[in-house]
Amino acid sequence: MLKLDYSYLMAEVVGDRCGVTETELAAAAADVSRIHGELMFSHQEGGLPFYDLPFQKDLDALLELADDIAGRCDDLVVLGIGGSALGTSAVARALLPLSHNLLGPQARGGRPRLFVLDNVDPAGINALLDLLDPARTCFCVVSKSGTTVETMSQFLIARDWVEKACGESFRDHFVLVTDPERGVLRRLAREEGYRSAEIPAGVGGRFSVFSAVGLLPLAAAGVDVRGVLDGAAAISPHLRNDDLFANPAYLNGLIQYLLYGKGVHISVMMPYSDRLALVSDWFRQLWAESLGKSADLSGATVHVGPTPVKALGATDQHSQLQLYMEGPFDKVVTFIVPDKLEQLPIPPPAGVPELAYLGGRCLSELLLAEQRATAIALARSGRPNCTIRLADISAETVGALMFTLEVQTV
Amino acid sequence: MLKLDYSYLMAEVVGDRCGVTETELAAAAADVSRIHGELMFSHQEGGLPFYDLPFQKDLDALLELADDIAGRCDDLVVLGIGGSALGTSAVARALLPLSHNLLGPQARGGRPRLFVLDNVDPAGINALLDLLDPARTCFCVVSKSGTTVETMSQFLIARDWVEKACGESFRDHFVLVTDPERGVLRRLAREEGYRSAEIPAGVGGRFSVFSAVGLLPLAAAGVDVRGVLDGAAAISPHLRNDDLFANPAYLNGLIQYLLYGKGVHISVMMPYSDRLALVSDWFRQLWAESLGKSADLSGATVHVGPTPVKALGATDQHSQLQLYMEGPFDKVVTFIVPDKLEQLPIPPPAGVPELAYLGGRCLSELLLAEQRATAIALARSGRPNCTIRLADISAETVGALMFTLEVQTV
Repeated sequence: MLKLDYSYLMAEVVGDRCGVTETELAAAAADVSRIHGELMFSHQEGGLPFYDLPFQKDLDALLELADDIAGRCDDLVVLGIGGSALGTSAVARALLPLSHNLLGPQARGGRPRLFVLDNVDPAGINALLDLLDPARTCFCVVSKSGTTVETMSQFLIARDWVEKACGESFRDHFVLVTDPERGVLRRLAREEGYRSAEIPAGVGGRFSVFSAVGLLPLAAAGVDVRGVLDGAAAISPHLRNDDLFANPAYLNGLIQYLLYGKGVHISVMMPYSDRLALVSDWFRQLWAESLGKSADLSGATVHVGPTPVKALGATDQHSQLQLYMEGPFDKVVTFIVPDKLEQLPIPPPAGVPELAYLGGRCLSELLLAEQRATAIALARSGRPNCTIRLADISAETVGALMFTLEVQTV
Repeated sequence: MLKLDYSYLMAEVVGDRCGVTETELAAAAADVSRIHGELMFSHQEGGLPFYDLPFQKDLDALLELADDIAGRCDDLVVLGIGGSALGTSAVARALLPLSHNLLGPQARGGRPRLFVLDNVDPAGINALLDLLDPARTCFCVVSKSGTTVETMSQFLIARDWVEKACGESFRDHFVLVTDPERGVLRRLAREEGYRSAEIPAGVGGRFSVFSAVGLLPLAAAGVDVRGVLDGAAAISPHLRNDDLFANPAYLNGLIQYLLYGKGVHISVMMPYSDRLALVSDWFRQLWAESLGKSADLSGATVHVGPTPVKALGATDQHSQLQLYMEGPFDKVVTFIVPDKLEQLPIPPPAGVPELAYLGGRCLSELLLAEQRATAIALARSGRPNCTIRLADISAETVGALMFTLEVQTV
C-alpha cells in the first residue's frame, strides 16, 4: 500500500552537505530499537492510546449515529479548530468526490454537504449560515475540553441560529464530540440531552482523526471510514517493527531528525495529487505542535523544531520550486505520489504542431513525469528529497498514510 | 487605507537576538534612496512596467470583453498555473462573496461561477468538467508564452470537451490571455479567431494580477476591478517616496532584508481574515520566485532566499503558533488585519456559565483580540512581527495591499 523511497536523501546521491549516510543510519539503529522498546512499553502500560484507534471494535454505534445525522440534514457543519478540524478536512478532500459540495443531493447519494468551520472570522460564518437552511442543517461540535473559545463561540452562534428558526427542537441539530467524562460539552450532553460521541481519554487533537472527531462527520458525509481504519490497521504491524529499514515511519522520522542536525530546518510536504492536498495541512499541525519546543525532555532550553511547509505538485513547481532548487540548503522535500491516477487522455493537438509532443499522452503521465523530473533535479542540486508512494488513493491507503505519519511524528 | 505597524520588530521590544535597531534602519536609508533612484530611472527608461498597471487607461475594451464572457456562460474556468492563477484566486476570495460558487445564478447577480484550474491532476479536471455544461462554460486560457505545458494540456482537453458538445462554435467558449505579439496562443487568436487579451510586454507572471491576467476573469465574475486599480493607484505615490519611513513597501522590504541577515530565514504571512487567506498564496510565489536565487547580480554563487510560509489567523494559532513561539529564532511574522470586520454578536451563553465572558461580545472582537494577544506574545518571546493594517476589506484596500507587496518585493 505504501512505500518510502529514500534514495535521493542519501549522501552518495545529493552529496555530503545535506545527505544522509548509510553509516549514520546504521549507527542510529540501536537508538531506534531502544526508543521502540520504550514506546511499546508505554503503550502496554496504557499510554499512547492512538495506537489502538485503528482496531476499535465498537464502530457500529458511531456509524448508526452518523447515518442518523445524515438522514436529518442536507448540510453538516463541523465546528472545530486545529486538530478538531484538519483531519476531517484532509480525509474528506481525499475520499469524497472533489466537487462533493457542488453536487446535488442525488449525486451525493443523499449524503449531506460537509463544511468545516475552523475560524472565527464573522465574514466566513455569515457567508456560510446565509447559505444554509437551519431546518436541514446539523452541527458537529468538536472540543475535548469544551472550553476552546473559537469553537464555543461558534456553538453559541449556531445554537441561537437554529433555535430562532426551529424552536425547542434545536438540540436535535447538534452532536457534541467531546471528553467522555468532563467539560462543558459533556455536561450539556448529559443534562440537556444533546447527542454526543466520545474522544477517548489520552487521545490529543493532533492524533484524533481516527476517533469520533474525524470518523463521525466523515461517515455522515459518506466516507468509507471502516476502509480508512482497515488501512491503518493493515500497516500497523510494519509500524511496530523495530527494524528501521522495514518501518517507513521510523526510517523517515530518523532521516528527518538527522537532516535537522545538518541545518535542514524546513520540511516540505508536496503531494502530487489534488486529493491529497490537505493531508499537508493536517500534517503541518501534527509535526509543528509535536516537535516545536522551547525545552527538551530534561527541561533544558533548546528552542528546536523543524518548520513544516505545505506545497502541491505540479502547481507549486510554478511557485516554490526555484527557491527549493536555488535557495539555501535548508529544506527536505517529501513527495507523496499515488501510483494509480485517473485516466484522462490529452486529445491530439490539431493545428498546434508546437504541442505535438503531448498528443496521445495521458494527463497522469504528464503529472508523474513532472514529479520524477522535480525529484531528480532537486537531488542533482544537492537537495535531499524522498517519495512516499501509495498504490492508489483509496480509503485504505489514506488510512495507512496518515497512521504512518502519526507514528513518524511520535 | 494601509498602515505598517513595525514596533514589534524593533530590538528594544523583541531583544537584540533578532530585533532591528533604529541605527540599522537609519544606516540603510542612503542605500534605500540610491536603489529608489535606480528603480525610478529604470522605470523611466521603460523598465518595470508593472508600476504603470494601476493607471491603465484602456480598461473599457477589457470590461466589455468581460461582460461579453459573463453573458455567455454560467461557469468561467481559468486555465493557468503559478502567476497566471494565484492573483485571480486571491482577489476573487477577497472580493467575491465567500460562498460565490455555492450561490444560485440570481444571488450571483447573473455572474458566472469562477473556477481556477491550476493543476494537471486528472482527478481535479475530471471532477470539474463532470460538473459543468459545456454549452454554458467559458475558459480563460492564461499563458504568456503559450508553451506552459500544464496550461496547454488543459487547453487541449477543454477544447476537445467543448467541441464534442458544441461543434464548430467551440472557439466562442475561449478567451486567450497571452503575449501581444508572440507565441502559440497569439497565433491561434490571430489565425483562428479566438477572442483574446494581452499581457503587456515586460510584465511577468508574478506581477501580472493588475493586467488582463487577473482583471479579465475577475471582472467577468463580478469583481469591481476599477476599484482594485484605484486602490493601487491611490497608494502609488507613497510607494514612490524615497523616505523610508513614509514608504511601507520600502520599510518592510528593508526590515525583511535586515532580518534575513540575522538568520531569520522564514517569513510567515498571517492574515486574520478568511477573505485574505489566499493573498498569502499569491505572495508566496511572488516572494519565493523573486528572491530565491543561486547567484547574486554579479553572478557569484550565493544560494539565498527567505522561505515564505502561509498561515491564517485565528485558525493556525491551533496549528503553527507553538512552533513560532517556542521553536528556533528563524521567523518573522507579518500579520494582515482589517480594522473593520463584519458584525456578528455572540449570543448570551444561556445555561453555560463557563462561557459568560463571551456574552455581549462580537465575534470580530474575539478575532482581533486573538491577533493582538498573538502579536504581543510573540514579541515577548523575542519573535519579531509586524502588522499591516487595512482600513477594511474592499476593492481599494485589496488593490493597495497587493501593489504594496509587489513594490516591497522589487
